[in-house]
Parts: sequence; C-alpha cells; structure tokens
Amino acid sequence: MLFDLDGTLVDSVYQHVIAWQQALERVGIELSVWRIHRRIGMSGGLLIHALLRETGRQFGTDVHRQLHEVHAREYARFASQIRPLPGARDLLARLDALAVPWAIATSGRAEGAAVALRSLDVPSHVPVVTREDVAHAKPDPDLFLEAARRLDVDITEAVVVGDSVWDLLAARRARALGVGLLSGGNGREELAGAGAYRVYEDPADLLRHLDEVGVRSPVSPVPDRRD
Amino acid sequence: MLFDLDGTLVDSVYQHVIAWQQALERVGIELSVWRIHRRIGMSGGLLIHALLRETGRQFGTDVHRQLHEVHAREYARFASQIRPLPGARDLLARLDALAVPWAIATSGRAEGAAVALRSLDVPSHVPVVTREDVAHAKPDPDLFLEAARRLDVDITEAVVVGDSVWDLLAARRARALGVGLLSGGNGREELAGAGAYRVYEDPADLLRHLDEVGVRSPVSPVPDRRD
Repeated sequence: MLFDLDGTLVDSVYQHVIAWQQALERVGIELSVWRIHRRIGMSGGLLIHALLRETGRQFGTDVHRQLHEVHAREYARFASQIRPLPGARDLLARLDALAVPWAIATSGRAEGAAVALRSLDVPSHVPVVTREDVAHAKPDPDLFLEAARRLDVDITEAVVVGDSVWDLLAARRARALGVGLLSGGNGREELAGAGAYRVYEDPADLLRHLDEVGVRSPVSPVPDRRD
Repeated sequence: MLFDLDGTLVDSVYQHVIAWQQALERVGIELSVWRIHRRIGMSGGLLIHALLRETGRQFGTDVHRQLHEVHAREYARFASQIRPLPGARDLLARLDALAVPWAIATSGRAEGAAVALRSLDVPSHVPVVTREDVAHAKPDPDLFLEAARRLDVDITEAVVVGDSVWDLLAARRARALGVGLLSGGNGREELAGAGAYRVYEDPADLLRHLDEVGVRSPVSPVPDRRD
C-alpha cells in the first residue's frame, strides 16, 4: 500500500493552501484560494507553473525559487498545527500487524515532509519517497513506481491511497489501483472522476473497509457452538 | 438575483475554515479541517451543532457562545486578506446596468459580513440580509425569502447564486433557481447533486454566461450590411 502524505495521512492541506497563497501574494500574484487548493498534491514546480499560467504572465526562475522558499517558510510556521488524520496511525499499525508492506510517496520535499512524518511516528525502515528522489512528481507515476521498487513489490499489485486528483492520475499512469480519501477537501466525484476504485472519508474510514481493497485479515478460528 | 457572500462574491471561505478550526481547538475539540470546510455556508449555530455532534460530546450554551466569539475574533484577523472574487464587482455592475435587482443573503452575522461588503463596495441601497434578520439561516429558506421580499420580487422568479451545498438546498426549499459557483472550494458534482441548475467557476464565469440563467442583454440593433 503506497500512501500520499498531505491530506491522506496528515491534516495539512489547508495549511499548504494558505502558505502557497502567501507566497504568491509576496511576488504580487493574486489568485483565488480554491484554485490553489485544487492544485495541491501535484509537484510544487508544476503547481507554480499551472498557477502562473492562470495569470497569463511570464516569470523567471528567480520568482519560482522565491515562491518555493516563501511557501516552505510560511508552511513551517504551521508546524505545531499539523496532526495525523483520524485513524492514520491505527491504519498503519494494522497494516504492520497484517504484514502488508507500505510506503509513503509525496510530491513535497523532504524538509516539509519531515513535520508530517514526525507527527505520524513513521518507523525509520519505512520507505519515504519525496520530490528530490525522482525526476517528475505527480501526476507523473515516478513517485509511486519508486516507492513500489523500494518495497520490492510489483506496482500492479499495489494500492495507491491519496486525497487529490493528482494521486489518482499518477496511480493510473503507474497501473496501480487508486483509492481516494475526502480528507484533503476534494469532492467524492472529483476523485471518482480521476479514476478512484473506491473513495473513503479518511484513514479511519479506509481502515473499516480494508477488505474492499483486497487486504484480508487472517481468518481467526471461530469456535463452533454446536461442538 | 440573490447572492450568498462568502465564497460567492468574496474569497473568504478558507479564512473562515481556519478561524473555526482555531475556535474549536480553543475549547479542546480537534476536527479534520475538511469537515469544517464542508459545513461552511450553513448557519454558525447549525455548524457548531453539526461539528459537535461529530465529536459525540455534549456542550453547553457557554461553549457555543465561546466558539462564536473566538471565530469572530480569529476571522477579523484575516480582514486585510479578504478580497472580492474575480469578476464579482463587474458582475454586480452589469446587473445594475441591466436594471436587474439584486441582493445579498448570508448565514453570517452583520459584523463579519461588514469586511466583505466593504471590499465589494456594495451601495447602501442594496438589501443585505444577515443571520440576525431571520429565525433560521441556511439550509432553511428564510434568508433568501427575506431578500426577495426586500427587493419586492417573487421568489419563484429569483436566481440564487451560492458556493455551498447549503445555499443550493435553501434555494430549492425557497423554490428559487439555484446556481452554484466553485469559488468556495466545493466540487462541481457536490453542487449539482444539491440541485444546482448550472455550476460556474466564479463570478467572472457567471458573468460570461448570464444568458444561460435568463438574464438578457437588451438587443442592440445590428446594421444590416445588405442595406
């Protein structure tokens, strides 16, 4: 099972949205907040490119670098507010108990991901693939392909769990099964329309429905009361 | 034409979300941010009631009052960030030019609405109906019914424009035609599922499609080139 991080395991999407808005304002770009929200989950580079395109203006690499820097700084100020989503730690513990291998693959950079990983208490042996590890982030499939490679599992046997359209598009391009979560603030139909096999509310809801995505609990022997 | 305010004419939904989150934290309630977002647009009282219900706990009226107060204070801190959505002022000016009567009807209180109204430069003769003016806010129909009454128009002739499911449900209960906008961060299908007759991106997009909702420009005489 390959997890996105922001909005999927930790409740951090809205803080990323506000941090991007503040970065864009700093360079003189006013964009509606909902348009930023809908780009969260894709690579930061693609996000900047897509948002700048909506303004119809051209910007140099110095502006891109400044946007990345201000976003990272503003997001860091929210660090104390970042919490695991309901059920996230229970879900990961359950996978461990069932010996289901899992990894994390995020379009974010290692520095920003560190805050979220700390809140989740992710053991050091779990593969965490970040933006720096691949040539292209989501919606390209590279992050999930690399995560599957590190787990030594076939990507076509993997379930990708994400809260954004970009996770689900990347899952399809990787030929993995995509599962959507509403906990990043996207609508159920947006995720279904991007190819989600199933959509759940949050990690707690996925945990209650693990059998629907092919994760089976070992059958415990039920005493036969007629014996 | 009867407009919701936050997320429909001004870009303020995400600031309301964060302000409610901070208010809830202050009284010891941790709720996922997306759940708060999905309740924005309904009456503050119903919102608190719905969110507290998700925690499964009981709270007294003192907690309700404290939540309202902290939300108002935290939201006020965002006042300098609140801006009209793209096209909002042009749309309202266009309606004035076409002599289409319009009003604003918000589940918010007058105090919070004042910030948004200032950024829009709403003329003082425009009816603005707020939470204090009616017994029940959205999704009850009262706010839109009162706005139509003040314009002296039949509610069944009115078009309600809103960004939330609660606007569209209130429009249906009022027997008005509901039009949805994506600018509050809800998905197209969520709004369509709540009964939107049409869904547009934001006020600018609605302005480009006014004919689809029954607002006609006076036909300007086109010179016949064969004359």
